[in-house]
Amino acid sequence: MTTGFFGDAKPAKYEGPDSTNPLAYRFYNKDEVVLGKRMEDHLRFAVAYWHSFAWPGGDPFGGQTFERPWFGDTMENAKLKADVAFEMFSLLGAPYYCFHDADVRPEADTFAESAARLDDIVDIFAQKQKQTGVKLLWGTANLFSNRRFMAGAATNPDPDVFAYAAATVKKCLDVTKKLGGENYVLWGGREGYETLLNTDMKREREQAGRFLSLVVDYKKKIGFKGAILIEPKPQEPTKHQYDYDVATVYGFLKDFGLEKEVKVNIEQGHAILAGHSFEHELALANALGIFGSIDMNRNDYQSGWDTDQFPNNVPEMALAYYHVLAGGGFKTGGTNFDAKLRRQSLDPQDLLIGHIGAMDCCARGLKAAAKMIEDKALSGPLEERYAGWKSAEAKAMLSGKRSLEEIAERVVKKKIEPQPKSGRQEYLENVVNRYV
Amino acid sequence: MTTGFFGDAKPAKYEGPDSTNPLAYRFYNKDEVVLGKRMEDHLRFAVAYWHSFAWPGGDPFGGQTFERPWFGDTMENAKLKADVAFEMFSLLGAPYYCFHDADVRPEADTFAESAARLDDIVDIFAQKQKQTGVKLLWGTANLFSNRRFMAGAATNPDPDVFAYAAATVKKCLDVTKKLGGENYVLWGGREGYETLLNTDMKREREQAGRFLSLVVDYKKKIGFKGAILIEPKPQEPTKHQYDYDVATVYGFLKDFGLEKEVKVNIEQGHAILAGHSFEHELALANALGIFGSIDMNRNDYQSGWDTDQFPNNVPEMALAYYHVLAGGGFKTGGTNFDAKLRRQSLDPQDLLIGHIGAMDCCARGLKAAAKMIEDKALSGPLEERYAGWKSAEAKAMLSGKRSLEEIAERVVKKKIEPQPKSGRQEYLENVVNRYV
Amino acid sequence: MTTGFFGDAKPAKYEGPDSTNPLAYRFYNKDEVVLGKRMEDHLRFAVAYWHSFAWPGGDPFGGQTFERPWFGDTMENAKLKADVAFEMFSLLGAPYYCFHDADVRPEADTFAESAARLDDIVDIFAQKQKQTGVKLLWGTANLFSNRRFMAGAATNPDPDVFAYAAATVKKCLDVTKKLGGENYVLWGGREGYETLLNTDMKREREQAGRFLSLVVDYKKKIGFKGAILIEPKPQEPTKHQYDYDVATVYGFLKDFGLEKEVKVNIEQGHAILAGHSFEHELALANALGIFGSIDMNRNDYQSGWDTDQFPNNVPEMALAYYHVLAGGGFKTGGTNFDAKLRRQSLDPQDLLIGHIGAMDCCARGLKAAAKMIEDKALSGPLEERYAGWKSAEAKAMLSGKRSLEEIAERVVKKKIEPQPKSGRQEYLENVVNRYV
Amino acid sequence: MTTGFFGDAKPAKYEGPDSTNPLAYRFYNKDEVVLGKRMEDHLRFAVAYWHSFAWPGGDPFGGQTFERPWFGDTMENAKLKADVAFEMFSLLGAPYYCFHDADVRPEADTFAESAARLDDIVDIFAQKQKQTGVKLLWGTANLFSNRRFMAGAATNPDPDVFAYAAATVKKCLDVTKKLGGENYVLWGGREGYETLLNTDMKREREQAGRFLSLVVDYKKKIGFKGAILIEPKPQEPTKHQYDYDVATVYGFLKDFGLEKEVKVNIEQGHAILAGHSFEHELALANALGIFGSIDMNRNDYQSGWDTDQFPNNVPEMALAYYHVLAGGGFKTGGTNFDAKLRRQSLDPQDLLIGHIGAMDCCARGLKAAAKMIEDKALSGPLEERYAGWKSAEAKAMLSGKRSLEEIAERVVKKKIEPQPKSGRQEYLENVVNRYV
Repeated sequence: MTTGFFGDAKPAKYEGPDSTNPLAYRFYNKDEVVLGKRMEDHLRFAVAYWHSFAWPGGDPFGGQTFERPWFGDTMENAKLKADVAFEMFSLLGAPYYCFHDADVRPEADTFAESAARLDDIVDIFAQKQKQTGVKLLWGTANLFSNRRFMAGAATNPDPDVFAYAAATVKKCLDVTKKLGGENYVLWGGREGYETLLNTDMKREREQAGRFLSLVVDYKKKIGFKGAILIEPKPQEPTKHQYDYDVATVYGFLKDFGLEKEVKVNIEQGHAILAGHSFEHELALANALGIFGSIDMNRNDYQSGWDTDQFPNNVPEMALAYYHVLAGGGFKTGGTNFDAKLRRQSLDPQDLLIGHIGAMDCCARGLKAAAKMIEDKALSGPLEERYAGWKSAEAKAMLSGKRSLEEIAERVVKKKIEPQPKSGRQEYLENVVNRYV
Repeated sequence: MTTGFFGDAKPAKYEGPDSTNPLAYRFYNKDEVVLGKRMEDHLRFAVAYWHSFAWPGGDPFGGQTFERPWFGDTMENAKLKADVAFEMFSLLGAPYYCFHDADVRPEADTFAESAARLDDIVDIFAQKQKQTGVKLLWGTANLFSNRRFMAGAATNPDPDVFAYAAATVKKCLDVTKKLGGENYVLWGGREGYETLLNTDMKREREQAGRFLSLVVDYKKKIGFKGAILIEPKPQEPTKHQYDYDVATVYGFLKDFGLEKEVKVNIEQGHAILAGHSFEHELALANALGIFGSIDMNRNDYQSGWDTDQFPNNVPEMALAYYHVLAGGGFKTGGTNFDAKLRRQSLDPQDLLIGHIGAMDCCARGLKAAAKMIEDKALSGPLEERYAGWKSAEAKAMLSGKRSLEEIAERVVKKKIEPQPKSGRQEYLENVVNRYV
Repeated sequence: MTTGFFGDAKPAKYEGPDSTNPLAYRFYNKDEVVLGKRMEDHLRFAVAYWHSFAWPGGDPFGGQTFERPWFGDTMENAKLKADVAFEMFSLLGAPYYCFHDADVRPEADTFAESAARLDDIVDIFAQKQKQTGVKLLWGTANLFSNRRFMAGAATNPDPDVFAYAAATVKKCLDVTKKLGGENYVLWGGREGYETLLNTDMKREREQAGRFLSLVVDYKKKIGFKGAILIEPKPQEPTKHQYDYDVATVYGFLKDFGLEKEVKVNIEQGHAILAGHSFEHELALANALGIFGSIDMNRNDYQSGWDTDQFPNNVPEMALAYYHVLAGGGFKTGGTNFDAKLRRQSLDPQDLLIGHIGAMDCCARGLKAAAKMIEDKALSGPLEERYAGWKSAEAKAMLSGKRSLEEIAERVVKKKIEPQPKSGRQEYLENVVNRYV
Repeated sequence: MTTGFFGDAKPAKYEGPDSTNPLAYRFYNKDEVVLGKRMEDHLRFAVAYWHSFAWPGGDPFGGQTFERPWFGDTMENAKLKADVAFEMFSLLGAPYYCFHDADVRPEADTFAESAARLDDIVDIFAQKQKQTGVKLLWGTANLFSNRRFMAGAATNPDPDVFAYAAATVKKCLDVTKKLGGENYVLWGGREGYETLLNTDMKREREQAGRFLSLVVDYKKKIGFKGAILIEPKPQEPTKHQYDYDVATVYGFLKDFGLEKEVKVNIEQGHAILAGHSFEHELALANALGIFGSIDMNRNDYQSGWDTDQFPNNVPEMALAYYHVLAGGGFKTGGTNFDAKLRRQSLDPQDLLIGHIGAMDCCARGLKAAAKMIEDKALSGPLEERYAGWKSAEAKAMLSGKRSLEEIAERVVKKKIEPQPKSGRQEYLENVVNRYV
């Protein structure tokens, strides 16, 4: 018994690389073992509730293009939406989903009534999870759409907004725990400023630090086992957002003593907007020990706003999964698609097609990455490049056993004149092209 | 007795706003008192040796355009260059200058000989400082031009380069101290990577941390009283540089326990390239307690590379000095012009004109900023905007005396529904326009 | 008898530079004569109906922030909106306004009924224009918000959309003429593509050419005396828009033989998004003989989307008006503010304050530009720089009287070796700073 | 008998996809027939003389990194350079090369002597072409490196520079013809401005038009059969360049009546810098009938300057060749690599490896593109999307047989209300991924 929204679509199957069936997988074969683990367990795909089911297709110059039978702010519609959503998760064979409170229930006039509505939907979700086996990768609170948050949530000049946001996160953390969510995400779309002329950045930073500490304390208190994740983004909607990128979030966590408590959910498009490659952010999070999860969508490199497209460039994706695997793979995290259809993609099946294409590209990328790791295609040359640091003297310098003076003295005495070696970038790029 | 390079130019004088003399100041009146301090003591102007005297006018598609009598790698030329440089400092009435080792002496075949040449020039500088009263704002080492540094200095895969760089910084710190320099700057133009394919970011980050610790230790040992400053820049020359921006540097300092030891030298153009406004970086450094000094040049907002132009937009500069003053003004730092003439500006007097125009704009900006501070033009409305946080309950939340649950409970009980207030951005922008 | 929306606001008066009244002009003194013309006649200010009265304050991550009594799709609301709009024009003393069909009347179920509603509102506008003396700078059709235009208007793959768009423009041109509009603007927000994978660019270009020819023919037929203006913009909402910038529009006009019939409406923010300065686009339109009108708002240089802010940087605005004046000033065109309040600027008076600040900055810019022109501050040095082209031989080369061979022969014979001269950029920038 | 520069490298052979030999082709099999033509004849690869042999590895913050035995401004070195160059062309099996005058001979003190040196080298080239079978894809003049061109070549304020540039182009066109070059390229790296303050854009545009007309006239006179190509680039080295992009060049050509005489050489990196995709520029040039040739390098999307990297992203390259093939393939043009090694890639073999990887990626891209064309993978859905325009009424509208009034009347009468259809972007992206 289905809603009929997706017509006669059947669950997407793996049909192999030669399939031309737009609703079949060509590469994602969930039970196939890669580096000793099933692909499903590596990739841990999640569908984003908001873009797929709540977004009407608007952009800054135009309104709704999608016509969905569940649009309209009633609980009845919310339930129909849930039916369609879980149908889609099953058609795709996606093991996870993610949601904000605002995606799943219409907002009511009071906080209490909104919370009650959320509870009703969460009960439905719990039942559907049981029926379908689909799980919650992460829950989160929408602290950016409602006008009450226009000047920030935790970082609002009005302490009442701070309180309201705190209450909202508490509620969302409660339901995430209840649904067995494996992470809880904080994206600070309004935690930033439009103009410094009306902003006390130091104070707002302290508010943000306090807020995050409260969340971490509460998580512990209720025994939520999932990870708390911050999702960095440099700007948009606000002119400047405090969680600019991975490095900035790390500094913030260190400042408030939270670097062991909180990790990051890294989105390709947000990395791009911050002037970084996705791989950079992944590698940095690994280096800093705060890697959590990813939003594997794609941003147009040439659009200065967040385009949230389904990913499709396999060579780039292979490098992303290379860093995920190099860091040990996902623990609580996974591959969420914070991706929306282009607003001209009106057909229900476009939703399936977008996800299937994306999941297939991830599978190709993962397999290429795994092969590079097995072959030490990149790690071999890398080790060789830094081999000089294995000498006793080099180790002594690095570990602090030599002072600046001692080092300088050795340079003069030994007449050290370093000889540059080729960085072999083109060679390594060609090597990668053997795998993708 | 002058070199004659600047023709019959006389020391630039303050002639007031109506002057049309291109070699006179219209606003920079060094002894004029602003907010209780002489303008000279507020602004602490410095001329950059490299752009003014060492740069030949090249760009990636063309070579030398400037014809300077001191070009050519001999000590004789280096001495002539020093003569002209101090002549210019005096003609401008600039109280400070800054230099890299590579700007002032030709490199020799060995480290030791290069160091000896530097000593010779430093002796000349010491004498000229005495004669002219000009002082050294900061010294620094060029760890980016020579091919030995092509893959990094502190972060090089070859430990010999680390050692060579360490010896170089030791030497430059020694001469900076000798010349009474008030700061020492580290700009890591090659501390980063061209491609992640050949880079071990975690290891390189550790190398950088060790290097900086060595420098701080040595500074203390020799009793250098100046500040150690890192100059953030996101990219160029390398694809990615580790000292991306102020927030990134802060996280790095925290990680290595150096956040009390090192401050930042913020350049407008570097801020722009990192996707920030200059004011953002200044305000953030103030908030984090690591503000040190500024490079007050200007980047073309639409060129994706560092254009290092003389600043000329007074409204923007006023906001920059507003944040400098709001943070208490310069301590050891100052206003350096890391600015070069456009390569078509061939005439010797263009060097004077570029600096005079820039200094005048700084003076206008400073005066406007000072007046805004006196009038509480921005701080008044700011205080009002955050006034809600003065309540006892708000203070309790911020100080950690309330748990997430308690806050949430209050929201429900008190039926808190925050009421947004106007952010008044247009009003505040109009207010600023009363001052500039 | 007013609507009371603006409280007790009185018509904004000129009070001189020292006024601190946020609702008074400090520089815009409409009857003051500059370069032989009243400021009002130079600047020809227009208020944009859409941003001021139809925009709810949403952004891609949040919905309505403004609460206006006229929001809601009824004709009654449309009439209240018109009352408030003309009240604001009068309070500001703005001589002009601009509108899209969609701004002023709610859309109906059929084309015919929508047109009838437009007629009703246009009758009201006509009456209000008479009462207040406010005039229509330009009319335009909204061919981008409704989902029917999602894949283009003139350039849609569906000829029915072409037809619908044509009918819409005909209607809007009719009412613009009826209201005495001085221009008609076409902005092709959906004339472009999201992906080349589904786009036949050559065909779409031809559709656009035909569409514009139809409009020009019709304009002549009905005797509309105003100018037809294309408003270039490179992207947003679509990934790529055909009317990218002034140079692109010029090539398009030439291709379809319309370069004498159509001019451009240049927006600062659109120039920026295309990688140009506003002055560039103005100077180029002057050089090509297609300058029409301006949208004098401001884009954040660092946001990759259209921020449509009120302008506030006087030095930049002075250079813009310099090019407007240098090209002979506005003919049918004027200074429209396609500017919206920041979405946190909730108060009715913020609408007045935004416009007043902007108009004041324009006035300062205009006066500075006029003075530069009077003083030949820039044109003098410019003439001198190109003086070499006054020689007979240079003229002969330029006019085509010399062949490549003849020129080459002369170079060899005369041993021509050109001697570069300083471009004096810094000097000229300092000169400009004397005026702003 | 070789120079020995490339060690024991043997001519690169096709070894098939599984080869791990870094000096072998895995996909480029020159005699393999694709769409009825040999791959060599499709791709028409050319090596760029400048980056491979004349560039020392500098960037704006560092000097030479490469140590080549032919560096130094003597004719002897120039000859050694020619030996190595033709050795490399042969090792690669590249059928073409390209050069500027300045790449191949040291500049002399006079124009006449520089020309004589060029002749000497050209004689050597002619002989080597005969020996190796390598041909000249295009010649060009370097009108940007020497300081005489700092303010423009054709667009210089000094008519002597215009004359000097004209003489230079004449000479280069002569030798290009002599060497059987198949095209002649003009890239206007200094034809633009640094600041509008000192620039008369209208005049400079006229100078450029005259210059190009002179070149076209001369080409005809000497019977040069190749194509004249303009290479668009938006900026860098100058702040703004007149040949911004394909659309801008088209408008310029139309203005001076040269749109039938001149075509474009499109570079991927320049397209990116202008805010376009490479495919956009290709498709537009096809639509306008001015497509000529390509520079198939790659720009880092996130570096705001020209990075001129070897291409390596096959999915993107497949789309580029799709447009080349869709337009009928190269006529006189070809695939030039205006690509340089990263400056850390010091080894001679890096030069071979960079080119081999790039050629292989081109071959993969070409084959994927050819298959898409054979399968009508994209053109089929495209035709269907625009099918509505085949109706008689639609054709009548497009051909100008209907007036705006007639169309509007039909909309009202027939109650036309267009029904949007899915643009199917995700589906088409997935289709492309079947081929790459």
